[in-house]
Amino acid sequence: LVDAERIAADIDALAAITEPGRPYTRRAFTPLFLEGRAYLEKRFKSAGLETRIDENGNLIGRRPGNGSGRGVLMLGSHSDTVPEGGRFDGIAGVIAALEVARSLADQGITLNHDLEIVDFLAEEVSIFGVSCIGSRGMANMRPPEWLERRAGDLTLEEGLGMVGGSPHASGARNDIRAFLELHIEQGPVLEADHLDIGVVTAIAGITRIEIIVTGRADHAGTTPMTRRLDALTAAARLVIAIHHLGQELAATAGHFAATVGEFEMEPNAANVVPSRVRMLLDVRAEHRRDLDQFRTLLGQAVEVVGQETGVTIAAPKVISDNPATPMHGEVIEALEAGCQATGASHRRMASGAGHDAAFMARISKAGMIFIACAGGRSHTPEEWAENADLTLGAAVLRDAVCRLDDQ
Amino acid sequence: LVDAERIAADIDALAAITEPGRPYTRRAFTPLFLEGRAYLEKRFKSAGLETRIDENGNLIGRRPGNGSGRGVLMLGSHSDTVPEGGRFDGIAGVIAALEVARSLADQGITLNHDLEIVDFLAEEVSIFGVSCIGSRGMANMRPPEWLERRAGDLTLEEGLGMVGGSPHASGARNDIRAFLELHIEQGPVLEADHLDIGVVTAIAGITRIEIIVTGRADHAGTTPMTRRLDALTAAARLVIAIHHLGQELAATAGHFAATVGEFEMEPNAANVVPSRVRMLLDVRAEHRRDLDQFRTLLGQAVEVVGQETGVTIAAPKVISDNPATPMHGEVIEALEAGCQATGASHRRMASGAGHDAAFMARISKAGMIFIACAGGRSHTPEEWAENADLTLGAAVLRDAVCRLDDQ
Ligand SMILES: NC(=O)NCCC(=O)O
Ligand SMILES: NC(=O)NCCC(=O)O
Repeated sequence: LVDAERIAADIDALAAITEPGRPYTRRAFTPLFLEGRAYLEKRFKSAGLETRIDENGNLIGRRPGNGSGRGVLMLGSHSDTVPEGGRFDGIAGVIAALEVARSLADQGITLNHDLEIVDFLAEEVSIFGVSCIGSRGMANMRPPEWLERRAGDLTLEEGLGMVGGSPHASGARNDIRAFLELHIEQGPVLEADHLDIGVVTAIAGITRIEIIVTGRADHAGTTPMTRRLDALTAAARLVIAIHHLGQELAATAGHFAATVGEFEMEPNAANVVPSRVRMLLDVRAEHRRDLDQFRTLLGQAVEVVGQETGVTIAAPKVISDNPATPMHGEVIEALEAGCQATGASHRRMASGAGHDAAFMARISKAGMIFIACAGGRSHTPEEWAENADLTLGAAVLRDAVCRLDDQ
Repeated sequence: LVDAERIAADIDALAAITEPGRPYTRRAFTPLFLEGRAYLEKRFKSAGLETRIDENGNLIGRRPGNGSGRGVLMLGSHSDTVPEGGRFDGIAGVIAALEVARSLADQGITLNHDLEIVDFLAEEVSIFGVSCIGSRGMANMRPPEWLERRAGDLTLEEGLGMVGGSPHASGARNDIRAFLELHIEQGPVLEADHLDIGVVTAIAGITRIEIIVTGRADHAGTTPMTRRLDALTAAARLVIAIHHLGQELAATAGHFAATVGEFEMEPNAANVVPSRVRMLLDVRAEHRRDLDQFRTLLGQAVEVVGQETGVTIAAPKVISDNPATPMHGEVIEALEAGCQATGASHRRMASGAGHDAAFMARISKAGMIFIACAGGRSHTPEEWAENADLTLGAAVLRDAVCRLDDQ
């Protein structure tokens, strides 16, 4: 029903649209991104889809249904990449969605719903420093002040215009019944468990927490070890505490991960006792109670380390807090039924990474499937997914779409 | 015998020669440094000294002795500062030395030795990235390749010419019988012990050790806590181990301190597991056996952390290794006798910081005294020493010089 070679040819064609010698770099708002889109639009058209750029800069290909007014089933993901990474991250989901449309066309099937294939604008953190611009826009969740964000001379308002969108969006779409997205897992679980498909139960919340440790800059040669307020030594104790808390909470039910992703020290001079450390934590929680418990235990660790070392540690500050998003039960079940029908081995799992589906879930019933990627690696030129897995994923999507269409 | 007001006036005059609004910044090779030197030269001349810039860029004021050919007694320190720090660090020792010469002149005393007052060039890490340029040069220990070091368009060779020196030094001086330096302690010990003077027994060795921890960059959202190679968590364990080793060795006889002064992490991105940490350790040891033991135990810690975390930690690499320098027994005794004669309370102590005296010890009998500085702080605008302490220090120097002159 779905065609592996057609899928592989499209993946290869997009992979060739990258900065020379720098695979795979097709960042949103760049000429290469527009080149990738031009290719996609051509392919959408060959599949018989009516194409348009919506007001949020998303490329959409439409296959009208039988006119029964039951709304839209939307499939897709994103074609933009991070610098040096994204042979599959995003584009796999766009091509799988396109293949579903092609397969339906091949067989002359008309759905009860209108089918829309979407390439969301700028899912990755773009040149404007923010992510999921297109899906946030479609859900009317893009902060208006983002329009003024700049990348060099360009504002996001101008960037939206450049890709064919409009800054004056007319609100959330309310005609989408369900949204389905295929994506590479970006983690090692499916590969390790030798499974074809992960059916996503929820997209974990992403909470960013800043911790600032303030000690005292002293001469590293002359200040006795017992008389220091060494910000680094105190921060190191917190790093270890955070890692252990992360491990403990990850061992309970539900996805949980805590990472100190940013760590900067001052004055960072060879012969000066460190006076200040700034850490930025990335916390992913499927369940809010795990996040709450983490924050409680983190607060206790901060107290203890502050008391025992004498340094000052400000109360951990939540910089951003996007709650977890459950996927919709009907879509989860349709996708699981799709796995069974196509013979795909599968498990339920949470997504630790953020996705456009998290925003689509605000305005529609949303669901996602993952396919394995080699070593769980993504956002790197080595990122790899097998075409057989991607093809099987497209078949699962196709089956689930038909099921949802019947309901 | 020595004049507190004259000392205070000179300290104040030099303090006024700084970048506007940025006390106290008079870095070597800058116009302000030359302005400070012009002031010093004028004051040297008023004290009856014959002034010259030697081939290593050091300002020297000379007071001839009685011609008995017993060589030179040299006193001094440095007038350059780090950025935003150095109201006393360095200049206190130059002014105290000058005051000794003035005091001898006031009383019409002619020594058996020629007396030289010195302002060494660029004791602090200068714009060329290296320190103790003048004293290294006088001891013929300045690496020849340093002449090619650059600060913007300027080479050190040109810099030396600019201050009145010459790149073609004629070797180590061999006419200096003893060198005495007064400096602020740059540590908290004298202040805490309510003592006037620290008589320095040795200048601790300075060893810089680089440690590189290599983990694996993974997606912070999706990679399970149990499947990470987190370079930061492993590095944090080493930071704590190093701190504990430092505390243990500091509790034994002899000065010892270990500091992780530089710490950089990659990729330092919020949602990526840290893949690499580079640390630079600063280790100060009065006794080589403490350094050796530290290195052995550090090697063991690296093994253990590497094994337990799975990350790769390269064997710690010694980047530079300057051994400890004992001060000369005769000079130590003369300075202690000077403390007794002037009624200064005192103790013996090692210098944790490097000083010009460490290089002068290679070509003469060298000794140092410390005076307290507020809170042990230095290299900061808050750096402070009491003029009474500085004056007492100058009296101790004067007394010691006369003793050494008689021997
Ligand atoms: N899918 C993905 O990598 N999203 C980026 C945002 C995040 O999860 O860190
Ligand atoms: N005295 C002083 O601060 N020297 C700088 C070199 C060092 O000891 O770190």
